[in-house]
Amino acid sequence: MFRTAELGQKVSKSEFNQREPLLRQAFLEVQANLRVTNLRVNSDFPVIILFGGVDGGGKGETVNILNEWMDPRWLITRAYDEPSDEERDRPEYWRFWRDLPSKGHIGLFLSSWYSQPVLRRVYETDDQATFDDRLDRIRAFEKALADDGALILKFWMHLSHDAQKRRLKKLEKDPLTSWRVTQQDWEHWEIYDRFEAAAERTIMRTSTGTAPWTIIEGLDPNYRSLTVGGIVHKEISRHLEVISKKKILQKELEAQLTATALEIKDADAGSSDAEVDDAATVLTPLPSATLLSSLDMSLKLQKSDYKKQLQECQARLNQLHRKALKKKISTILLFEGPDAAGKGGAIRRITAALDARHYQVIPIAAPTDEERAHHYLWRFWRHLSRAGRINIFDRSWYGRVLVERVEGFASEAEWKRAFAEINEFEEQLTEHGILLLKYWVHISKDEQLERFKAREQTPHKRWKLTEEDWRNREKWDDYESAVNDIVEHTSTHTAPWVLVEGNDKRFSRIKVISTFCDRLEAML
Amino acid sequence: MFRTAELGQKVSKSEFNQREPLLRQAFLEVQANLRVTNLRVNSDFPVIILFGGVDGGGKGETVNILNEWMDPRWLITRAYDEPSDEERDRPEYWRFWRDLPSKGHIGLFLSSWYSQPVLRRVYETDDQATFDDRLDRIRAFEKALADDGALILKFWMHLSHDAQKRRLKKLEKDPLTSWRVTQQDWEHWEIYDRFEAAAERTIMRTSTGTAPWTIIEGLDPNYRSLTVGGIVHKEISRHLEVISKKKILQKELEAQLTATALEIKDADAGSSDAEVDDAATVLTPLPSATLLSSLDMSLKLQKSDYKKQLQECQARLNQLHRKALKKKISTILLFEGPDAAGKGGAIRRITAALDARHYQVIPIAAPTDEERAHHYLWRFWRHLSRAGRINIFDRSWYGRVLVERVEGFASEAEWKRAFAEINEFEEQLTEHGILLLKYWVHISKDEQLERFKAREQTPHKRWKLTEEDWRNREKWDDYESAVNDIVEHTSTHTAPWVLVEGNDKRFSRIKVISTFCDRLEAML
Repeated sequence: MFRTAELGQKVSKSEFNQREPLLRQAFLEVQANLRVTNLRVNSDFPVIILFGGVDGGGKGETVNILNEWMDPRWLITRAYDEPSDEERDRPEYWRFWRDLPSKGHIGLFLSSWYSQPVLRRVYETDDQATFDDRLDRIRAFEKALADDGALILKFWMHLSHDAQKRRLKKLEKDPLTSWRVTQQDWEHWEIYDRFEAAAERTIMRTSTGTAPWTIIEGLDPNYRSLTVGGIVHKEISRHLEVISKKKILQKELEAQLTATALEIKDADAGSSDAEVDDAATVLTPLPSATLLSSLDMSLKLQKSDYKKQLQECQARLNQLHRKALKKKISTILLFEGPDAAGKGGAIRRITAALDARHYQVIPIAAPTDEERAHHYLWRFWRHLSRAGRINIFDRSWYGRVLVERVEGFASEAEWKRAFAEINEFEEQLTEHGILLLKYWVHISKDEQLERFKAREQTPHKRWKLTEEDWRNREKWDDYESAVNDIVEHTSTHTAPWVLVEGNDKRFSRIKVISTFCDRLEAML
Repeated sequence: MFRTAELGQKVSKSEFNQREPLLRQAFLEVQANLRVTNLRVNSDFPVIILFGGVDGGGKGETVNILNEWMDPRWLITRAYDEPSDEERDRPEYWRFWRDLPSKGHIGLFLSSWYSQPVLRRVYETDDQATFDDRLDRIRAFEKALADDGALILKFWMHLSHDAQKRRLKKLEKDPLTSWRVTQQDWEHWEIYDRFEAAAERTIMRTSTGTAPWTIIEGLDPNYRSLTVGGIVHKEISRHLEVISKKKILQKELEAQLTATALEIKDADAGSSDAEVDDAATVLTPLPSATLLSSLDMSLKLQKSDYKKQLQECQARLNQLHRKALKKKISTILLFEGPDAAGKGGAIRRITAALDARHYQVIPIAAPTDEERAHHYLWRFWRHLSRAGRINIFDRSWYGRVLVERVEGFASEAEWKRAFAEINEFEEQLTEHGILLLKYWVHISKDEQLERFKAREQTPHKRWKLTEEDWRNREKWDDYESAVNDIVEHTSTHTAPWVLVEGNDKRFSRIKVISTFCDRLEAML
């Protein structure tokens, strides 16, 4: 079964460098389509990508590179350790159900529902029959998800016995990677044959039409990354196409039935357009001076300096975070700023330095109806991670005193008392030993206009630009003064705001990462 | 501070018996209003009721009687032990935020966010300053909730030092209640003075206008139950009134603005009425014979027999569940059946025999949008409790093969494969050692008509009857044949369906409880 994955396939560095940017761009487009589908129509789907295979086969690295290539806001990564006591109190699959990505999202699963069954078989805790039962359960689980529309892709990262040994030795020699090799890895290597037998049976019994396994040669990082990436891209695109065909059929059917309904909707749309026009004619006065307007927006960084500094910062961050993880120090980073300020790009430069198992990017959009039935802080409490992790909020609880204030969704009484509520919330975070950093990534109004225009002209970025962005722009001054209030009320010693001059993306990204490093180092 | 609660106030049994039914009825009405508000308008609110006080002061009993008096479907009860490892990984308040009732719901909190601060002070782990800090945090927390519209009521159950001693001795003597008295209770009694001091400071610093404490004399069960009940009822009613006045003002404002919008809505409402009329004229054929039609619906129980048997069953259930709790055996009961079949009444007869800390009634309505973004089983996985608890589902995952099938919300492919998915799900529950019982509480079509009519004539039950109920009635035969399929496909040895002849409520309730007892006993 695994012979095809022991051919020594490689991809040269130059070829990789040529292909990678294309793939990255393709990914962003495909993810955008996943999201567009999600926003406009109901027939969207979650993507579940699983990684199994031998230690040293590059499971973790592949997950990390996918995290780098894709927009981490619609991506979750999960790995499973020994179950916690809460998990042990429930049936085994409770934790997997809990972590499933919702529609429009991609979930990457390391050491997933396959780990326990395979290991129990390898260590002979389970006999063959019990093992088969467990595999049947997996099949039923994946079938239920696939039937519900989920796209499931499974990759088995393979290494030959010899190749695994060489790989582990190599990892051990490099001080930057030696931490990855554990005693358990060598134990597994010793019982390679048993492991291979269990793997074969697993793949045989759980590779189905809707949830197939692909075996990947894990030796060469370039090869395996491009291969996995290519398959993921192809399969998501295909699934999108199938879904969109179904949608067209459905629409045609509906069109014949809902002439009246459409009339009503048209009338509705008309009236809301009128409102927009009204808003556009209102000019708000420019406030005298704000903190933001005092920023030196001309700060810049040369490309060569940027590359060097970025590499250094990322290496430093990686080292620091590993220490933080050991000490169980959690981090919460939050990003606010005007549309197109480069929050996403800054976030990706941080996550690129981290192991995908240890961070989570949480994009904050309009609350769900369940969230609306609670206090507005409730949804943020929900997202707190276990110790040692990094939570990155792309927009945050400051929405209460930003968009909700400016757009009038929150009454004056509500957003005014929110400052205290937010301070109280953040105090509980920092008291618990969490490092909290709040970034305002800023750009000038002119720079924003240019970026909007550029987005309009780039096909795979066009989805990012909505009518709302243009509307928000009209309220630029209101937002500026709201930010002023925010910094005034909520920048504390333990939870300071970092204002980032973002007209130059290179400068902005380095400032974001290096500030994070400095704070983390100080804390350690 | 506590003198007023050491007067030896009592309520005679006859007075209690006279007042209790009135209060119960008032509660159901008030809860209905809370829900009506929730369904029709957005300005509803959660109710948070806290209990603090000395051991033996009747905190647990009061919570239990409130659970008995109110409709448990809109009620959650929470008590907090030592934090779990997942909880320790997050800031202290994470678990409290997680458990807050949503709008339209009532949460009863035992040993809540006050426990740790008070105990840490009593045992002198915290000095006075730290204690005050913790009380400040509580105040900020409760303020944030109250500002958001929550109604917060706090009861401090008090006993004098002597009275507490007598009460603990009395509880210890009765074999049915001796389990309630722990070594810790006596330890607390020994340090009564320190406890009283901490209590006084707590009440002083955290009794605010929007979250006041009421001190209740805990000696006489009749007195304390009626007092607490009366206050809860009065305060919820008052809060409802305030909210509705606000709503009227708001409506008047809106009315002036939305003439056009109303026209559109009217047109819409008109067309859906037409649909209902259409549906009413369609007659579905009666299937030849169903399992349900073979039930002997004439089964009855005399009132005197019922009373005796109910008491016996409830006592038996209480004993059995305490054993189950020790052995960490969880139970999941689910109830399905036609509207007005008496599911709620049967559930209340079960919960009356249980400690509110150990069960949870989960009413299943239409899924939230977050739930809709996942597989339909996802929401039920979420609700699984920790070991030893009883989860009671009022309607369940069988909605997929009942209402969703009959109403066409699920395609034929979807509901057909649901049988297997449900079996797989239930197998995981029973394999984990959970006792799973599925009740179909049935009534005849004629009996349903009579109950609907009776509901229309009882003011505090009228809210229960919706247009949908009448519509569902039209599809009676479809539902009967769906049930047939369900029993055929999903009644397994480990997770059987219990069909309950429900035309006589007394018979039905006894059958429900006694079946539960039998199964639980067999399991133990």
